[in-house]
Order: sequence, then C-alpha cells, then structure tokens
Amino acid sequence: MGDTYKGKLLRLNLTDQRAQEEEVPLDVVRDFIGGAGTGIKYLFDEVRAGADPLGPENKLMFSVGPFTGTPIPCASRMSVLGKSPLTNAVGLSLTGGYFPVEMKKAGYDLLLIEGKADKPSYVVIKDGEVRFRSAAKVWGTQTTDCQQIIKDDLHDQNFRIACIGPAGENLCRIACVINERRAAGRKGLGAIMGSKNLKAVAIRGSGKAFIASKEKLHAAMSDMVKAMKASPVLFPVFAKYGTSRGVNNHSSKGIFPAKNWTATGEFAPVDRVGMEARQSHKIGQTRCAGCPVSCGQLTLAKTGRYAGILSEGPEYETIYSYGGQTGVDNLDSIIAADRLSDELGLDTMSAGVAIGFAMELFERGILTTRDTGGLELRFGNHEAMIELIQKMAFREGLGEVLADGVRIAAERIGKGTEKYAMHVKGLELPAYDVRGAYAHGVNYATSFTGADHNRGYAIQEIFGVAVPHPADRFGTEKKGGLTKWNQDVRAATCDSAPMCAFVLDTALAPVALKNTAALMEAVTGLSYAPEDVMKAGERINNVARAFNVREGFGRAEDTLPERVMTEPLKAGPSKGHCISREDLDVMLDEYYSARGWDLKSGKPTRAKLAELNLAYVADELGV
Amino acid sequence: MGDTYKGKLLRLNLTDQRAQEEEVPLDVVRDFIGGAGTGIKYLFDEVRAGADPLGPENKLMFSVGPFTGTPIPCASRMSVLGKSPLTNAVGLSLTGGYFPVEMKKAGYDLLLIEGKADKPSYVVIKDGEVRFRSAAKVWGTQTTDCQQIIKDDLHDQNFRIACIGPAGENLCRIACVINERRAAGRKGLGAIMGSKNLKAVAIRGSGKAFIASKEKLHAAMSDMVKAMKASPVLFPVFAKYGTSRGVNNHSSKGIFPAKNWTATGEFAPVDRVGMEARQSHKIGQTRCAGCPVSCGQLTLAKTGRYAGILSEGPEYETIYSYGGQTGVDNLDSIIAADRLSDELGLDTMSAGVAIGFAMELFERGILTTRDTGGLELRFGNHEAMIELIQKMAFREGLGEVLADGVRIAAERIGKGTEKYAMHVKGLELPAYDVRGAYAHGVNYATSFTGADHNRGYAIQEIFGVAVPHPADRFGTEKKGGLTKWNQDVRAATCDSAPMCAFVLDTALAPVALKNTAALMEAVTGLSYAPEDVMKAGERINNVARAFNVREGFGRAEDTLPERVMTEPLKAGPSKGHCISREDLDVMLDEYYSARGWDLKSGKPTRAKLAELNLAYVADELGV
Repeated sequence: MGDTYKGKLLRLNLTDQRAQEEEVPLDVVRDFIGGAGTGIKYLFDEVRAGADPLGPENKLMFSVGPFTGTPIPCASRMSVLGKSPLTNAVGLSLTGGYFPVEMKKAGYDLLLIEGKADKPSYVVIKDGEVRFRSAAKVWGTQTTDCQQIIKDDLHDQNFRIACIGPAGENLCRIACVINERRAAGRKGLGAIMGSKNLKAVAIRGSGKAFIASKEKLHAAMSDMVKAMKASPVLFPVFAKYGTSRGVNNHSSKGIFPAKNWTATGEFAPVDRVGMEARQSHKIGQTRCAGCPVSCGQLTLAKTGRYAGILSEGPEYETIYSYGGQTGVDNLDSIIAADRLSDELGLDTMSAGVAIGFAMELFERGILTTRDTGGLELRFGNHEAMIELIQKMAFREGLGEVLADGVRIAAERIGKGTEKYAMHVKGLELPAYDVRGAYAHGVNYATSFTGADHNRGYAIQEIFGVAVPHPADRFGTEKKGGLTKWNQDVRAATCDSAPMCAFVLDTALAPVALKNTAALMEAVTGLSYAPEDVMKAGERINNVARAFNVREGFGRAEDTLPERVMTEPLKAGPSKGHCISREDLDVMLDEYYSARGWDLKSGKPTRAKLAELNLAYVADELGV
Repeated sequence: MGDTYKGKLLRLNLTDQRAQEEEVPLDVVRDFIGGAGTGIKYLFDEVRAGADPLGPENKLMFSVGPFTGTPIPCASRMSVLGKSPLTNAVGLSLTGGYFPVEMKKAGYDLLLIEGKADKPSYVVIKDGEVRFRSAAKVWGTQTTDCQQIIKDDLHDQNFRIACIGPAGENLCRIACVINERRAAGRKGLGAIMGSKNLKAVAIRGSGKAFIASKEKLHAAMSDMVKAMKASPVLFPVFAKYGTSRGVNNHSSKGIFPAKNWTATGEFAPVDRVGMEARQSHKIGQTRCAGCPVSCGQLTLAKTGRYAGILSEGPEYETIYSYGGQTGVDNLDSIIAADRLSDELGLDTMSAGVAIGFAMELFERGILTTRDTGGLELRFGNHEAMIELIQKMAFREGLGEVLADGVRIAAERIGKGTEKYAMHVKGLELPAYDVRGAYAHGVNYATSFTGADHNRGYAIQEIFGVAVPHPADRFGTEKKGGLTKWNQDVRAATCDSAPMCAFVLDTALAPVALKNTAALMEAVTGLSYAPEDVMKAGERINNVARAFNVREGFGRAEDTLPERVMTEPLKAGPSKGHCISREDLDVMLDEYYSARGWDLKSGKPTRAKLAELNLAYVADELGV
C-alpha cells in the first residue's frame, strides 16, 4: 500500500466495458473523509443538473471510507450513491455486511459506475482485475439466488456480491441494492443499477487497509471500545433485541406512526409485533464484518403459509412499514414481507408506506376492488400486503401504480390523494411521528435525501443524549441548530468514516468528534482535529445541498406532509401535538441561520461555501 | 494417502458426540465397490431387524465411492442410506452436486451416523477434524437459509452442506436431504436426520482422491469420454434440455402418468409444461463437480405470484408429480412447487403423488372441503397444490394426513382408499406408466427400495438400448432377466462406483461393465474384470434383498398398485395395456429364477448367497 494514505477510485464504464483506476486526492480525503462524503463530492462534480436518474448519464457509486477494513469496529459500512430516481435529489443509502470490507481488501475506496451496458451484465472485481460478464443467467432472479448463482459461476464461494432483484430490473423507483442479507434500501438506488443493465457487482480482495500509525490506532480504538462498553443500551439491549426495541419505546412515547399516520402514535398491537414478540421468533444473530455487537436478528416465521420463512430482521423500520403503517399485527406476515422485499429488491420502508397509503384510499373508497384486482385492501390485511409487494416489484395492476413511491402514485391516482401521501421530496416517511419529535421533523424536512431519519437522527429526542444540549421533543426552540449538529456529525462519522449509526446513537455521540478525529489521524496520517470532523460534516451537507439546489430544490421543498402539519395526534403521550406550518417555519429559519444559508431561498451562501473551501461550488451555483 | 487404496469410514455417534475413523476393508471395496454397495452392507450388518426407522437405533449413511473426487467425469454422486421410514425397507437415495467430492477431499468414503443428539445439532467435518455444534440457529429454517447461515457461522463460505428442511425436522416420512440445490429425495431419509436431531452435515476438505495408476485411469477415461461424445442424446439433447425431454418423449409413447394414473399416458398439456415450455423459462445451466454435461437447468417462473421464483429443475419426475399427477398445467406453479419443496425438504415425487391422490379423493367426494380446510382440491388447482405442500411439511390439517406418503394417508382416511394409493412398498410411483413399459413394472415391483425407477431403469424400453438384448415394452418375455441385469449394472456402476445415471442411460450402457472395471482397476489397484462389476451389482442387490427379507418382506410385497393391474389405459399409444396379476406373476417367476431366489417366498437361497461370498447373510436369514 505504500507508506502514505491513498484513496483509490475504480471507474467502471459500462457502455464500453472499461475499467480505470484513479487516485482520490488526499485533500479530498481530508475535506470529505470518504464514504458518503467523497461520493457526494463526485456526484456533484460529475452528474450534471437535470440528468435523468434512470439514464446513462446518472452515476452509481459504492463508497467505503478510511476506517473500512481496519480493525476499527463497526466500520464495514458502505454508501451507495447516485441521483435518486425517487426524489431527483442526492440519493444516498448505507449498507453493512461483508461487501464493504471485501471492497477495501480488493483495493478500492470508491467504485464509480457510469454509462449503461447494452445487455444485462455484472461486474467482477478481484484484487484489481475487472471483468464485465453477461448476467443472462441471473437476470430476473431474486437476490439470494442471484448471489449464489454468481458465486457458483465464478467457482469461488468467497465473492461478496451486491445486486438488485426484479424490482431494480423493473426500474421501480423504490428498488434497493442488496448485499448478502443487507440492504442499501432507500431512494431507489436499485433502479439506477437496473437502468444501467447492471445486475450485480461481485468483489473479492486479499489486500489490507492502510494504517498510518498502529499505536495511535490502538489508543483511539481503546477509547472507542470503552465508550461502547459503557453504554447502557448498546450491548445490554441492542445486541439482544436489535432495533425492535424501538417499537415498544416509541409506542410508549406516542411517536410510532400507524395506519398511514392516522393513528395515535401509540401502537395498539405492540405486544403482538414488538420487541418481546420478535424475540420469541428469534433463532440467532448475525453481524457485519468486524462488529462486536451483532445486532442482526435472525427471525423465523412460525405459522401457516409463512412458517419457515426467515428474515434478518424485520428491523424497527420494517415493523413500522409492514406492521404499523399497514395495520398488520401478524408478525409472521411481517417477517415474510420483509424477506420477500429483500428477495425482490424492494425497499421495505417505501413499499410499506405505499401499501398503507393505498389501504387508506381503499378504506376511504377512493380505490375499490376494481383498482386492486379484487384485493380487499383494508388495514390489517396481511395477505393483500404480501400480494401487493409482489405486484409492485413486477409492476402489475395496482403494483404498477405504487411501484414508484407514494408521490408518483398520488399523481397517477389523482383525486386529491397527494394529501394522504406521506413523503418529503418523494421519499416516504420513516417510523418517527415527528408530531411528537420536532427535531426529527426538521430533519425530515431538510435532509438532502428527503424524509430520511438516518441523515440527522435526533438522538436527543430518543435516547435523551445531552450533547450538544438536551432537547424537549415537543418544542421548536433550538431545533434548527440541533438538526445541523446531528446532520453534520452523522455525515462525517457514520456516513463517511464510516461508522455504524447504532454505535453513534447509543454510545459514541458525546465523544464522536474527538474519537473520529483521532482515528482519522491514526489511519490516514493526516493531522486531524475534532473541529475538522465537524467541518467535514458541514461541508458534505453543503455540497449535497448544492447538488439539490442545482436540481431546483429550495426552501419550498423543505416541508412536511400536510397531515403532519394539520392533524394533531388525537390521543396518547403525544396527544394534541403537531408541527404546524408556523412551527416548521420558525425551525427552518433557525436551521438556515445555523447553516449560514439564505433564509428565503434556502440556498447556501457564497460566504459559507468559501469558508468550507467550496468556492467552486458557489461558482457552479452562481451564488 | 499412502500407496494402496484405503476406504475410510467416519463413525459419528450423536448420542455421545463421538467421532471415530475406521478403515473400510479392501475386500469390502472389492465386493461392494463403494457408495450404495458399501452402505447397504453396513446397513445390513449394523441395523437390526425391526429397528424403528425414526429411532436412535437406525443409522444414516452418506457414502461416496472410489471414483468420487478423481478426474473421472460424473462421479460426484453420493448415496444416502438408512432404513426407510417410508417403506421400512432399505432406504437409498442418490444426490450429486459438490458435497460428494468435498467429502472425499475431507478424506472419507462413508459417514456412518448413529444415535440421537439430545438437542438440534449439526456436524462440522474439516479434513479429519469433527465438531458437533448446536443447530439452534438453523432449526426450523429452509434449506437455502440453513446452508448460508452455517457457512456464515463457520466463517467459511467453502463448506458444502447437506441438510434437512422443516419437513425432515417434522419427521415427514417423505422428507428429503438437500445439499446445495440437489436432493437425495426419496424414501424419507430426511426424516431419519430429523429423528436424530441432526439438521446438517457441513464438510470441507483439502485432500485428494487416491489413484493407483494414472496411466490406466487416463486410458479408461478416454474410452468413457469417447462413448459419452458418441451418444446422440447426452450432449446434443440432455445438456440442453436436461430431463424435461422425457415429458414429450414419454407422452408420445403413452407412458406419462397423469391425474393419479387415471389419464391415458398421453399428457394433454405437454405443450404448456413439456420440454419446449420449460426451455422458454430457462436462464442458465448448472453442473455437479467434474461434470462436462451440465444437465442442471436453472428455470425461472415468470408470472403472477410465482414470478421470480427459481428452481434447478423442475426435473422430469417433478413435472410429472406436480404437473401430470396433479393435472396442473401452469409451469410457473410447478417451478414454484419444486422450489418450495426443496426449501422445505420435501420429496417432490412423493409429495406430488400424495397431492394427486388427495385430488382424486376430492373429485370422488371422499374428501370434502371439510377435510381440506376449505381448499377446492380439484385436479389442476395449482394454488391448492402449493398450499398443501406447505401444510405437509408442517403437518397441518390435510397436510398431516398426507405427510407420510399415500400408503399411510390411505390408512388414515380409510374408506377403501388404498386402491387409489399409487405406491409399491409405500414408495410412491415414479413417472413411467408401467402399463406401457413392462420391465419398468417388474423393477417397480422388485426394487429393494419400493417403486423406484432408479434402481433398475429399463433403458431398453425408453432409449431403445439393445444390451443385453432389445425389449418389447409391452411383452412379459425375458423381462425378469432384463430387470436383474438392469438392477445389477445400475447398483454396481451408478450407485456404487459411482457414476451419474444419466451417463449410463444415454451413453455408457453397452460398455459400462468393461469401463467400470477398467476404472476400478486404475483407481484402486485391484485386479478387476467386467464380471466382477456384474457380480458386485448382484451382491449388492442380494444383501439389500436380505435386509428386506429380514424385515419381513417377501414375494407378496413384490407387487403393483391395483389400478395398474386392473385398469388398462383407455387411449393413446399404450391403449388397452395393463400388467395383469398374471403378467406380473410370469415376470416375477422369471425374475426370481434369474436371481436364483426361491420362487415361492422370493427369498435369496443359500446357494446364491454362498456363490456371492455372502454365507454370513444366509446364516443371518436362516436360509
């Protein structure tokens, strides 16, 4: 690897089957760290305004970071990026598992995939050797089969494979990318792969990640592990229950949304589909490479037509989308829906929200059995839910209407249904009812990826974390600055270093900047201070915002669904609350101020961009 | 490996978690070759008469042969053996894929599994190292998931795994053993694994198979490959279509059974589910280790709820059982049923015949929706078929009635339904309507495993092979001797050497004895003549027969279902034919004579056993 840190990019042009290595300049590493940060910079630099997300001019990136492949725990995380076909904004989704470390071992920090193959293809990368192969043998297959057939075909079971299912091939704008049993789920990145005729990327490597100073690394890791062990949640609860604890926790706070956000935030069937229920279906645990926590829960359906179906999950968000959102209280069916979605390569969150949306329309009589192909699409009908998932992936009947998310579905259906479409910027809402968690609301409204809990998760509202300061989940005060802090820390640490978000959320937040800086210094040899981490996070959010601004996004798009702003919760611990248009405006003003952006347009200012060493971005935007 | 051939047995006692290596004596290799031959000898020697097939006293064997792991093509075949829970006779089923070669590389010819684990377990074998591990994490899982989870758990994707699905765990007497996408399908051997609390065997090896003379091997292999290339069927048809050609071929002969053997032998929907139809669903091919043919056909369902489901197959027999037998002409549903059965670990053949049996009873009004849990169980109802497969594996409702095969189902249902139960000795009939293929009939009646096309496949009737002599498929003449020849050749070559049956059937039959002898000599260093091969085959059939005789089987059990003997085919190319009781008796007399067995009892005689160096077997039987 040489004796100084080098980021390596592999440019894969599918149109002419060309592979070319490039260096990621060290100042890019310093400024953007890696992962999402580096990816977003390349996205801004290389994908022109107005590009068709499903055209050959869009680019797809798999991006890991300096920590990936080192002994730093919980760093087998990969950002998948492109211009989102679902939102037309920055598309960013993270995945874990083993692919990220394997990619680093193969020698790469970033795979930058461009063009379009003339027929279904997959790419094989082994320690710097690249082959473009026909995907005829796997086109149409589910993701588990696809991965196995490719391993068999390469006569090597040790490849790690990221692929799409039928949903991605069929260009569903809510299609995901799957590696092993993990998903880079949201924003329709699977459809980008499909649009490029790219079924899979298979990778294998035997190299090692660069470490500038083993001594410094050891010291910084030791601090990190201490913080992890000190967490009352990470090992004691999270390792045992994974994310399912959220069902109980958030229901007790009145912020677990159900039935297309028409319920009270207290989830009635929590005993049937919550933490303990899922625990009773658990048969084992899994982990990503180099993770001491092992939060992945292998869960087995037990009854009826679902018996024997396994999922790694369902995660909290999927219990929301296929449980709460659809009113389904049959845990086995949620497990089956989760697995089916992974096999078909459909984002469980967007798909579940879309089904809940359709169920509300059916209950209201706006959709009838004529539209549903005979399905009695009432809340709670788990068989209809499973059937719709299949139909969405294959764009059949009502599935065709819903396959591109709720925003487009509402356009197709018309009849004023947009007001029932729970999304921001086209991305379906995650499982935090922002009416009882205001900072989550600001984040949903402002995240550069749409309604995305992962881009600025308000740990203060959920875990009571007191950094940078405590927060009242119902108040508007200081929520703008808090959201900036959450977004910037998250972008630099979890999304770029990278580091598993669960570790940040439950253990590392108070020391994340310091620890990430120390680890960056140890790994890259760059001199790196906590302020540099924060600055990198801010820089990443600014470039991402600039990308969106160039696509036409502004303050008007930083909003929330009408229901959230006009229908207060009717009962439960968050009773009476909603984020009114005025509340949101107050918080947005504070957010833009904290960001140094123009209050009216929501655009980054030249001054801010220049401060962040991004004058060229200001030039490009013409601000 | 030393410089003389040694067979190695690994005895695995699950009760006390003990593993012990033993040598398979060279005279056992000489007399029984390996694979099924060696396994049947150990079965006879070690499993006492009257043993409960699902008790700890039954033994389970995985047995490969001298050819396995050498460069000899098509030898990655493994016999799985035990006393069958379905028939109470010898249980033998073969599988291919990669497990057999891996087992040889790990150093073993025979895994002999005895006792019963006190809790769900799996066994890990790596180059002579053995570990017994808890299967808590895979118990209840489908077979694909089971294999992947174990690989992940062992941190080694290169293990090859043979396992059971829920059907085996639930002791369905028609449960199979699955390795990769291959099945040791018949006779309920999966239930033996389940009864022993053994979910899986994971194996990996780095050794090499012993070869006494590379020069001799090269010469004999060259002859074998020449014969394979000369076949007008093997590469030109079989590699392209796999076994699906049989649907068209046998339908055109009027011997493709349908609707529980009530149809004409011409299969009406051959265009919808036959060779060309399946071809249109094919996306690729697979092969077993060391096979130049690649007959495995990856087939993808295309429509509706089945879209995206893949199967390696469905093979000819499964198109019969889930198509012909059930009257289903929806190919996608047959693909889905095939895959579901593999995932649940249910033998597709027995399961399909059982469903067809239930469908006839429903059509006759003997079963009603009260019995079926509301299912309209008419011939052709593919959704009901899929639902019943799931119910059988989990023993739910009517599935519980059918889960142990048609003989036991008929006992449970009563009302004279045994006459609709298409089986011999409890084993459901394969896809050759013996009313138009008499030698197949004798083989069904006499095979030591029950109605098993694989134990003495009458190639003369199907491929027109003229060795040992041509045969008229409707005549009784010489069918006894022919069946003996087929059974003995098959036992020695395909089942013991081993060698893929498809190669024997389509290419090698005329030279099989000579070629197998030459290969045996080359591999083992033993002096081996064609007559020795034939003799070994005869010996294997005699020991197997002796096992069954000791269990109480005799001439009375060498029979065929009433329908086959009393209802001539009503139309088509085999119109008017059936094997009457008299026809069968004529052929049985000739068969026993050819075998040198007692005509009245059907028992092997002391003279014959002594001639085969099996005096100890005669002692044991008291003949």
